Amino acid sequence: MVKRYLTVTSLSETLSLLRTGFSCIPSREKVSLIQSIGRVTAEPIFARYSVPEVHLAAMDGIAVRSQETHGASEQHPVTLEQAVRVNTGNVVPPEFDAVIMIEDVHANNELFTIRKAAPPWQHVRPAGEDIGESEMALPSHHLIRPSDIGALAAYGITDVPVLTVRIGLIPTGSELVSHGNHPAPGQVVESNTIMAEAMLGSLGASCTRYPMVKDDPEQIRKTLQRAVLENDLVIISAGSSAGTKDYTAEVIAGLGEVLIHGVAIKPGKPAIIGRIDTKPVIGMPGYPLSALTVLREIVLPLLHRFGLPSVSFGTVDARFTVSVSKDIGSDEFVLCSLGRVGNSWVLSPLSRGAGVQMSAVRSNAYLKIPAGVEGYERGKTVSATLTVSRSNAERALLITGSHDPLVDYLADLLMYRDVELHSTHVGSMGGLLALKMNECHAAPVHLLAENGDYNIPYLQKYLPGEEVVLICVAERQQGIVSKDAIGFDELSRHTFVNRQRGSGTRMLLDHQLRLNGIDPSKIRGYEREVTTHLAVALAVKSGEADAGMCVYSAAKALGLPFTPVASERYEIAIRRGHLDDPRVSALCSTLVSPAFSEVLERLGGYDTKETGVRRSLP
Amino acid sequence: MVKRYLTVTSLSETLSLLRTGFSCIPSREKVSLIQSIGRVTAEPIFARYSVPEVHLAAMDGIAVRSQETHGASEQHPVTLEQAVRVNTGNVVPPEFDAVIMIEDVHANNELFTIRKAAPPWQHVRPAGEDIGESEMALPSHHLIRPSDIGALAAYGITDVPVLTVRIGLIPTGSELVSHGNHPAPGQVVESNTIMAEAMLGSLGASCTRYPMVKDDPEQIRKTLQRAVLENDLVIISAGSSAGTKDYTAEVIAGLGEVLIHGVAIKPGKPAIIGRIDTKPVIGMPGYPLSALTVLREIVLPLLHRFGLPSVSFGTVDARFTVSVSKDIGSDEFVLCSLGRVGNSWVLSPLSRGAGVQMSAVRSNAYLKIPAGVEGYERGKTVSATLTVSRSNAERALLITGSHDPLVDYLADLLMYRDVELHSTHVGSMGGLLALKMNECHAAPVHLLAENGDYNIPYLQKYLPGEEVVLICVAERQQGIVSKDAIGFDELSRHTFVNRQRGSGTRMLLDHQLRLNGIDPSKIRGYEREVTTHLAVALAVKSGEADAGMCVYSAAKALGLPFTPVASERYEIAIRRGHLDDPRVSALCSTLVSPAFSEVLERLGGYDTKETGVRRSLP
Repeated sequence: MVKRYLTVTSLSETLSLLRTGFSCIPSREKVSLIQSIGRVTAEPIFARYSVPEVHLAAMDGIAVRSQETHGASEQHPVTLEQAVRVNTGNVVPPEFDAVIMIEDVHANNELFTIRKAAPPWQHVRPAGEDIGESEMALPSHHLIRPSDIGALAAYGITDVPVLTVRIGLIPTGSELVSHGNHPAPGQVVESNTIMAEAMLGSLGASCTRYPMVKDDPEQIRKTLQRAVLENDLVIISAGSSAGTKDYTAEVIAGLGEVLIHGVAIKPGKPAIIGRIDTKPVIGMPGYPLSALTVLREIVLPLLHRFGLPSVSFGTVDARFTVSVSKDIGSDEFVLCSLGRVGNSWVLSPLSRGAGVQMSAVRSNAYLKIPAGVEGYERGKTVSATLTVSRSNAERALLITGSHDPLVDYLADLLMYRDVELHSTHVGSMGGLLALKMNECHAAPVHLLAENGDYNIPYLQKYLPGEEVVLICVAERQQGIVSKDAIGFDELSRHTFVNRQRGSGTRMLLDHQLRLNGIDPSKIRGYEREVTTHLAVALAVKSGEADAGMCVYSAAKALGLPFTPVASERYEIAIRRGHLDDPRVSALCSTLVSPAFSEVLERLGGYDTKETGVRRSLP
Repeated sequence: MVKRYLTVTSLSETLSLLRTGFSCIPSREKVSLIQSIGRVTAEPIFARYSVPEVHLAAMDGIAVRSQETHGASEQHPVTLEQAVRVNTGNVVPPEFDAVIMIEDVHANNELFTIRKAAPPWQHVRPAGEDIGESEMALPSHHLIRPSDIGALAAYGITDVPVLTVRIGLIPTGSELVSHGNHPAPGQVVESNTIMAEAMLGSLGASCTRYPMVKDDPEQIRKTLQRAVLENDLVIISAGSSAGTKDYTAEVIAGLGEVLIHGVAIKPGKPAIIGRIDTKPVIGMPGYPLSALTVLREIVLPLLHRFGLPSVSFGTVDARFTVSVSKDIGSDEFVLCSLGRVGNSWVLSPLSRGAGVQMSAVRSNAYLKIPAGVEGYERGKTVSATLTVSRSNAERALLITGSHDPLVDYLADLLMYRDVELHSTHVGSMGGLLALKMNECHAAPVHLLAENGDYNIPYLQKYLPGEEVVLICVAERQQGIVSKDAIGFDELSRHTFVNRQRGSGTRMLLDHQLRLNGIDPSKIRGYEREVTTHLAVALAVKSGEADAGMCVYSAAKALGLPFTPVASERYEIAIRRGHLDDPRVSALCSTLVSPAFSEVLERLGGYDTKETGVRRSLP
């Protein structure tokens, strides 16, 4: 048994091993022409016959012998002895070699008179104009597009031999439940092989998902043996790390050899490259984003070696909006929201937890920080790799600042206007800073000032002299969420879950604690921070805390009692110069739309009498 | 009845009518999660439960009460009263609030001793870390990617409501035969609705292809009436022009209204925009490339209005390799081969005939020449729209010059090396000029000089002093193709089909005519020019001519007798500076590969003893 986990291999060495260590012979299958879209030809495709097969008229007119038209002119009209009426697409009979447009013909009974000679083959589509009998229409390994399908249909092709790679996907783990079942505590829905099938299948691979296997080396061995026999490539999901219940490497080594155990990528380090009967066997880590990274960085290049198409939306240079540090020695992949603010692209990282699949859902790009780099400073220009088309990324609206459950619904409504809202929850103060640095289009804020007003004093202080417009989203109800309708003055008797420093809700809490003469150090859990209203309500619902502060809509969503504390003005701050941006104006008109009113009504706890009201600075 | 064909509408006005004239309400359908790849959500999708639903250990170790760990240090180890062993992913029982990594724990029987305090929630994945119960996972109109599918599987989603547009496709035309049948002379395979289904279906539309309808207004009317009832959008293929058998506009007007008849685009002018029962009805012209243009420029934007995704591979700036002129007043779309030569992109137009589907097959980009422009000069920098991914276009190898049937087979073999050969047949002289202008990577040439040598004297004359390498492809057999084994000296007694001026074969013919004292003006058909060897053989096979000059392989491919005339050196000229280009080196190694030898053997008429031999200039 070979366990090389301690000597992690670099990604580039791993890819080079994949290039040299496997012959990568694809399988092939025959599919009907219409199903061949997006597939890759397994061999050259030849036209069954010439198109057109005979000479055709390219105009409505008469078919003539060009020799007979010699000398025809305005002065010397020629009446033809032989000519026949043809329409566009009609066969030009063999005895004729030109067509004269009907507009240029004087017809009298069956006699045609012309005033201009026709050169041979005028207005004739010659046989084979499009393609000749036996000519190659498509070479091997051609990615089939709709126009190719139209052409092949015309050339007599009804089904197409295409490449495929038979991939066996083996989900392992005693904690797994199959898709569609509600997992018990500690159980996990087996979703990684579903993601893999969706990704690899869309490139033309034929995926077989084997039944889930428990953490039992003998069971894994049996399944793997069968999968290697039945496929060109096998991917074992999970069990690829070096823990006590990680059997993947051991089982691969037992049936063949482990070439690499541990790749210097993050997420995705516990990846395995093995070989059994000359076939590649990949150990894919269990954390979903580790699995995603291994699929994208290792399996896709391998599939391309088999001849399947590669996917690429290209890269753009973008300003990175935070400072990040990382371990040297690993390529790190950070999922990001990318958008164009003014004339420059801006890239914001999403949560880096390998279990946070929503980071992948929310991302439209990722950043690769190479192994040799320790991190990036905020503001650095980096190369972002798109995971959507560039035109799709162009529609991203970047919203950075305070969180409210309504933001997701705003995102939903904006999709109908072709705008994709990307929100980053960094609290109101973080939003103001992002606005100052031109890292977002709009910043939702609710900052209570000493003078009792919201937001404006903060903008005056942190963006002095800058032209900013505040648009009211709603007056929203903040309060205490709990299972037992705990009042604000009872907080010190219960465990609490807090919001992060810099968030408006945290500032509101501190303000109210001061007003009520409550010492924060007396509140158990005051230091426990989460970043959204829903996370607060969830912590209460799960029993992690007795109480927390959030907006009414979050408590209502989880069916929890709510004790109102204060109403506050939730506004969106936008630089005046961005108001004409089509994405921003879509945001503004959505805010005052009846559909958005209905959403707020349904969510509850929002007063809309000020919604859409603008306040300008300076 | 409204027939507005005489007042053609501009493309931009047409698109603006599509935006304002229709409400574009999509249909929806429910598909299984795995089938939702590439589809667009019809409504927001919410998580069925929190993920994780309870707190989980993020490390292998022990679950502890953080309070009990207070004060632990190297000097003051703490033996915990309550703690349990947990592995990564295990539930952290409610009484605990932190996990300590097993490496930091001293275990003695059931007693755990630690030397460092654990802050609350250390190494714990809190409930809802990924997503909270009731939280929105995807908004409406979200294009579903593989990572979204993985996430939705984990969140308990088994099927997904997605958008679709029900599209009725009605093929009309008495000349049509259905796909799979060999068309009789003058018949055409109905391929345009197949192309439309492939294109629109891949975006999520649900296409119904109705049975083919003859050119009979009553039959068309009945089918259209039914299709409007059953669909959100109807496309009638062909019959959209203003000829005597073009009934599409008339039938639409009878059931509703014709808003536009004739759009100022080329190809695609005879397009119709109609409206029946508030639904859009598109008349799509019958020529395949006209149909393609109308689908791409008119139907795709309309589908995007319905909420389906738009397709875009972006644009690149490229040097245009020919001078073109066009009618002012129409946007013209020219299908092109795009490739990067040295540091600049080069764009070569393909045949502009609206019936030449191979132009679409061969193209990887197109050029839009706007209505106001009369044409472009050779060398102008233009914006090319990609029809393949940019990384795909990066692998294009541009070959310009003399044609030989072997070039298609070379293209086939190069695909296995991830190189896409794009060849333009402009004859040997045209190839030399393209090489001189840096418009191609390689130029196949076979130019017989006065001194009996091939190619070198021409390179010396036309690219004086330039460093060029000639690589021999093969010595190939040229001769007379005919049905009756006509000899060279009998040419003046038969009709002939010629190659274009500037082609090496034409020069060889003229040379041989001079040698044999034959006057070209005595050869009937000497002025009839086609551009490939296969076209010559086809013209003979179809009876258009009795004889022509071509290489042996073209005659053999069509099973025609061949009388040898001369053997000639077919070489590829490459600038020395391009030899290191990976695409060019793939070409060079393919030329000397056993696979290519086998191809030449099979095609016939090629002597390979000189294949791969290099000659350098100066």
